[in-house]
Formats: sequence, structure tokens, C-alpha cells
Amino acid sequence: MALIPTDLDRLIQLLARLPGLGPRSARRAALHLLKRREQFMRPLAEQMLAAAETVRPCGTCGNLDAAETCAICLDARRDGSLLCVVEDVADLWAIERTASFKGRYHVLGGTLSALDGVGPEDLAIAALVGRARDPGVKEVILALSATVDGQTTAHYVADRLAGLPIAITRLAHGVPVGGELDYLDDGTLTAALRSRRPA
Amino acid sequence: MALIPTDLDRLIQLLARLPGLGPRSARRAALHLLKRREQFMRPLAEQMLAAAETVRPCGTCGNLDAAETCAICLDARRDGSLLCVVEDVADLWAIERTASFKGRYHVLGGTLSALDGVGPEDLAIAALVGRARDPGVKEVILALSATVDGQTTAHYVADRLAGLPIAITRLAHGVPVGGELDYLDDGTLTAALRSRRPA
Repeated sequence: MALIPTDLDRLIQLLARLPGLGPRSARRAALHLLKRREQFMRPLAEQMLAAAETVRPCGTCGNLDAAETCAICLDARRDGSLLCVVEDVADLWAIERTASFKGRYHVLGGTLSALDGVGPEDLAIAALVGRARDPGVKEVILALSATVDGQTTAHYVADRLAGLPIAITRLAHGVPVGGELDYLDDGTLTAALRSRRPA
Repeated sequence: MALIPTDLDRLIQLLARLPGLGPRSARRAALHLLKRREQFMRPLAEQMLAAAETVRPCGTCGNLDAAETCAICLDARRDGSLLCVVEDVADLWAIERTASFKGRYHVLGGTLSALDGVGPEDLAIAALVGRARDPGVKEVILALSATVDGQTTAHYVADRLAGLPIAITRLAHGVPVGGELDYLDDGTLTAALRSRRPA
């Protein structure tokens, strides 16, 4: 005799595959949903189906949008000579929140990872090389995470872009704004010292 | 110009209402779903709708089951003289995992909480009193959390059951099995000392 009804058990298994939810929190989430099935569970399921239907990756940069080409790629006020390469759309959103970048983006869709079996052909690297060949492009900013996989990917992408008449740059390392030196790791502090600037 | 497409933004808002997901992890979860829309997002949405359709609270005890009366209430080998009162179905599952309880359950559906506006009429307390009046019932075990709200609820339920010819018991406080004394909070240690037993 199974204690948990089949449909509920299957739901828990699927919820546990969401990032940030483990087996225990997936059980809690499933019970939470079942308690509010009309106000919350059905709307959530229907919203998932709606988003699966209408939201798609931009054919040019990989950003998510309801249109075939995203609003950033279509916006004539954005600077097309500047391409900012990010791992995923969440990073694009993070940079847009700063309102300090007026170029366009290129979403790789992840990082190279030998461990997870992610190779160059799994990422939008060939498409990036194609876009960077456009004579209008002057600079490619590699805005990738400062992790081992992020930096491996940055090196690989820089290699693939080498030889093109463009600048290839990366984000500065340094002391986070508002950060206390005493709490900073040695690597960041070393980088901040090396890249010191006139006061 | 909105950066995040409407259907995706609505999905993120809804996901953020799941327990265990905040705004940032809801964004990550939504992107994770969209990357795997056919293998994961659609199956999850459809499983939600299926569970909303087939899984229902047992009319007797409040346990979740595909049938109108749950398998535990229908199981003639379970001891109907023993009612274990729990806050929610997750607690019922936790007790069932121990395989050390052979009575039946009563799911309250939460705890009393002045802060969250949960009163006695929001919980299955009247139904519990009704069940406890059955002459076959000999003992009601209040298996509620050792939190302020849990203990308030336990006191309230015990008051409502007072006068019936049944034993009202609660779970023992003490040292968790495998727990080191040095790491234990004072309240638990005091309770364990007070309830000490012959070795």
C-alpha cells in the first residue's frame, strides 16, 4: 500500500528537479499547492503552459522574449558596436538592472564544463563568432562568472575571437562597492591591488 | 519597454509564492523550466493539473489520497482506538516513515496563529472532537510541533477534548537519538532531565 497517492508522488518528483528545491522542500511545495489548488496550483500550471507557448529565445542574441527578435536587439538606440557575452538570461537581467550598459547582448546558454559534459557545440559560440565578424562590431565584453568554468569559457571564447579586428574585454575584478577589506578573499584583494588606479 | 516578457514575469511571480523559493530562486527556476520546456515544464504543468484533479483530502482524517476515504482510514489492521493529531500531511508522512505507529490520524490543517489570523474554525478541530466522541476511541496523541503556535494549538485542542473518557497524550521531549548533549539547547536538556527514566 503506497502512502502517497501516485499523482502526488509524481508531482513531488518533478518539483524536486527545480533548482533550489530538494526532496523535503518539494514535498512541502506540493502540499502547499494542493491546499490552494484553485487560487494557486491551477493558475501556476496554466501560466507554465502559457509561458512555454509564448516565450522564446531571441534568434539573434538568445535573450527571452515574446517576439522572434527581442526588444533589445530591435531597439535602435542600443549600441550595436558593443556585444556583452553572458552565460544566461539571468545575467543579462542583472546587467540591465544596473542601467549602465547600452550595447547589445549575446547569451551563451551556459559555460563549458568537462564535468557536466558541456562542450563548445552546446553553447552559442559559433553564433557569437558570426556576429562578431560583422564590421559594425568593435568590442566584445566577456561578462562571465569568475568561477573556474566561467573563466575557462572566457578563455575559449577569446581564442575563438582572436584575429578579428575587435577589442575583447572582461569585467574588472576588485573590491565590491560597500565591501570591507577585512572580509574579502585573498584573490579578490590581490586583483584589486594589481589593478589599482589613481585616486 | 519591459525587459521580461509578460508571461515569464507572471510565471516568476507565481513560482516565488512556493515555500522555499524567493524572488531570485524563482527567476532561476523559471529559466530552468524554459530551457527544458518539453522534457520538464509541460510534464510538470500537466502533473499539477492531474494532481489537482485526483488527489483529495480524506473525508475522515484529512490525509491526502486518490479515494474519498484514505487507505489508512480503510485499513482494518490499524488501531481505531488511537488517534494521532498532526498539523499537516507532511507530519503524517514523517510518522508513517517510522513504521512505529499503528493507529489512525487526524490532520488539523495547520496551527492556531493570531499573527496569521488562523482561528479554531480554520482547523479541523470540531471534526476531531466529533471523532473523539466515538466510544471506540481510547487515546488522542497530540503530535504537534514544539513551537509556540504548535503548543498553543495542543493546549486548545486538549481543552476542547477535556471531559471525554479518553487519554490525551503528547510526544515526549528529550535528547534526539544520536544527539550530542553539548550541542543541545537548554530547554530540551532541562526537559530530558525532568523526564529521566531508570537506566
